Amino acid sequence: MSRLTTDPALASWVPAPAGSDFPIQNLPFGIFSHGGATRSGVAIGDHVLDLAAAHAGGALDALPEGVFAQPTLNPFMELGHEAWRRTREQISALLDAATGPPPGAEAWLVPATQAVMRLPVRIGDYVDFYSSLQHATNVGRMFRPDAPPLLPNWRHLPVGYHGRASSVVVSGTPVVRPLGQWRGEGGPGFGPTRRLDIELEVGFVTGLGNPLGTPIPIQDAEDHIFGMCLVNDWSARDIQAWEYVPLGPFLGKSFATTVSPWVVTLDALAPFRVPAVAQDPEPLPYLQGGGDAVDLQLVIELNGEVISHTSFRDMYWTMSQQLAHVTVNGTNVRCGDLYASGTVSGASPDSLGSLLELTWNGERPLQLGSGERSFLEDGDVVVMRGWCERQGAVRIGFGECAGTVVPARR
Amino acid sequence: MSRLTTDPALASWVPAPAGSDFPIQNLPFGIFSHGGATRSGVAIGDHVLDLAAAHAGGALDALPEGVFAQPTLNPFMELGHEAWRRTREQISALLDAATGPPPGAEAWLVPATQAVMRLPVRIGDYVDFYSSLQHATNVGRMFRPDAPPLLPNWRHLPVGYHGRASSVVVSGTPVVRPLGQWRGEGGPGFGPTRRLDIELEVGFVTGLGNPLGTPIPIQDAEDHIFGMCLVNDWSARDIQAWEYVPLGPFLGKSFATTVSPWVVTLDALAPFRVPAVAQDPEPLPYLQGGGDAVDLQLVIELNGEVISHTSFRDMYWTMSQQLAHVTVNGTNVRCGDLYASGTVSGASPDSLGSLLELTWNGERPLQLGSGERSFLEDGDVVVMRGWCERQGAVRIGFGECAGTVVPARR
Repeated sequence: MSRLTTDPALASWVPAPAGSDFPIQNLPFGIFSHGGATRSGVAIGDHVLDLAAAHAGGALDALPEGVFAQPTLNPFMELGHEAWRRTREQISALLDAATGPPPGAEAWLVPATQAVMRLPVRIGDYVDFYSSLQHATNVGRMFRPDAPPLLPNWRHLPVGYHGRASSVVVSGTPVVRPLGQWRGEGGPGFGPTRRLDIELEVGFVTGLGNPLGTPIPIQDAEDHIFGMCLVNDWSARDIQAWEYVPLGPFLGKSFATTVSPWVVTLDALAPFRVPAVAQDPEPLPYLQGGGDAVDLQLVIELNGEVISHTSFRDMYWTMSQQLAHVTVNGTNVRCGDLYASGTVSGASPDSLGSLLELTWNGERPLQLGSGERSFLEDGDVVVMRGWCERQGAVRIGFGECAGTVVPARR
Repeated sequence: MSRLTTDPALASWVPAPAGSDFPIQNLPFGIFSHGGATRSGVAIGDHVLDLAAAHAGGALDALPEGVFAQPTLNPFMELGHEAWRRTREQISALLDAATGPPPGAEAWLVPATQAVMRLPVRIGDYVDFYSSLQHATNVGRMFRPDAPPLLPNWRHLPVGYHGRASSVVVSGTPVVRPLGQWRGEGGPGFGPTRRLDIELEVGFVTGLGNPLGTPIPIQDAEDHIFGMCLVNDWSARDIQAWEYVPLGPFLGKSFATTVSPWVVTLDALAPFRVPAVAQDPEPLPYLQGGGDAVDLQLVIELNGEVISHTSFRDMYWTMSQQLAHVTVNGTNVRCGDLYASGTVSGASPDSLGSLLELTWNGERPLQLGSGERSFLEDGDVVVMRGWCERQGAVRIGFGECAGTVVPARR
């Protein structure tokens, strides 16, 4: 028996303030600590539904014992798409105002202000793409002014690289300004980075893997995707510029990557899927039929001021194309892999996803209430937000992806 | 009470044939399956000592219950350097011919031919360096013939990148020829790689990590290293050449990386440490005092013929320098990270670590008993071996790092 969990007519007996990121139509999964325990939860309005308690209380069936009483979502994510959907339907029914709370259910709610959010996923491999045409073009114009801005491979494959998994942290984790080398006069300079930047990205995490040697066909790719989150790919531009030839970004990126704590499922995003942008030239067959885009609005706030407002819907490469490409050589995706989109930049000057672009490599500093900024200063607070809205659907949001820069440790 | 476990006078009551890789002075750790169970073992001669059985039998003390009855070495590796050394001393005493086997100890031995070796470590992040001066020079000469072969950063930092952890496999795992894109006329080509290559490397795995934000000082680096293994960084040169700008190698490498099953500890390697090569220019202070090199000889066999014989001792950057560099920006090392050296190439034409170099980009094919080879053919068997020997010490070896190429799946 299937339930339309995104039905705009649904309301919950747990109140969600107007404009909340977490109405009953959203139901994102996360990991939280409260009262000395760490377990899975679902965001609903200003509360977290304790899934371990709801499961133990008999409200969720056909799941392994203790699946939500773990410090990561991986045990649930490994169960696959049918289990994700069935559980989502049961949570939706449990929270439905039309039936009201089952006995004891109020005790399964924790005020969001009392929940400490944790990294939701034990990450296997972390891949960072470069899938915004506008971002890749901007970077090309800045650093290769005398050549075509896009490199020859860019329109034929979703360019990407492996990032560091160990330093992926949950929203709110302070980011220590990294030390490193940069190109100097007569030898490299060394010290705290002088060009600390952000990259506004959107990521997806995989639930089901594939066996080594067997690619995931593009039409099956979304069955492997558990959900999406916001990503801040913190970057030290001076370190990156010096180190990155010929093997790519390394220490300029590996010091921290922040993700939002709530994983929004593809089922919740179904009302906000839109046709992907047209690709020219047509990609190779294994990248055709690449699935829809997601109409997701994004903003960056720096010290409380919005410095960019952009959209994820115009990304050149879709999630399905990214996953089909990653595995075309037979590599194995695992439960918990994180695939980030690359910086999301739009065409207008106020829709760019990095300070590198917003200030055009530092040439045009931003004038903010907190002062002039080319790159980040110690104490700066960066908050990224994302949400989906359209006529005929209830708005859903991703919550915050936040971080504060703290001084280098020398 | 400390025991010199590398004493050449030691012999074991478990016979080790002359020239065995695994005399009592070696005692490398691995994971094996036998009789339906998977647990930790130590190689001794032609046998594997079942450490779970030895622990349960009371021969190893001061260790957590079940530490060796797991499918990875990580629970033991997490215990740190003092526990590694103490356990090594206990295993050495247990196997000592001078005292003979304790009661029941013969039952803890499994013939190596009956043990199925597994990936020894649950890998966190996998980093691949580029630390052979000769290899980096050769690649520069081939691909940038009109420029200085070394890029400006190369002598100032150990260049590296993050590789894919999911597809690191144990010796003996077949390698499926990957599909992928390459540069073609009027658009990319696609199909099974036509330039499948090997890279002879040596890796180290970390036991103890560091907290995010706190670099590992170079003088402490070796305390974090559990041991070393051989690595074959399989590479598809045509895929790599098309994809790698500007973010580095990705699908040209991510389809498989093979490691040898036995992790040789730094304690076993102590007699074979030699001064590292002189560096010019002097590196930055955080990379000074970089520890000794390892005098480790390496060979590559292709279908039973030795095609390269080289040495690890002349690598430009040491393991300690690599680990100090990786963490200088504060990133966190975890138990089980794998750090590979990059291709190990010597100065002579028969000491190069890749077919790319051995055949000079395919221009000078090898003439072998199994036929002419520029790159690998389906069915080819590659075996890498490594060993240490010097006057006054007992020779120890790393065992095999082997793989067979199987046809692409289309």
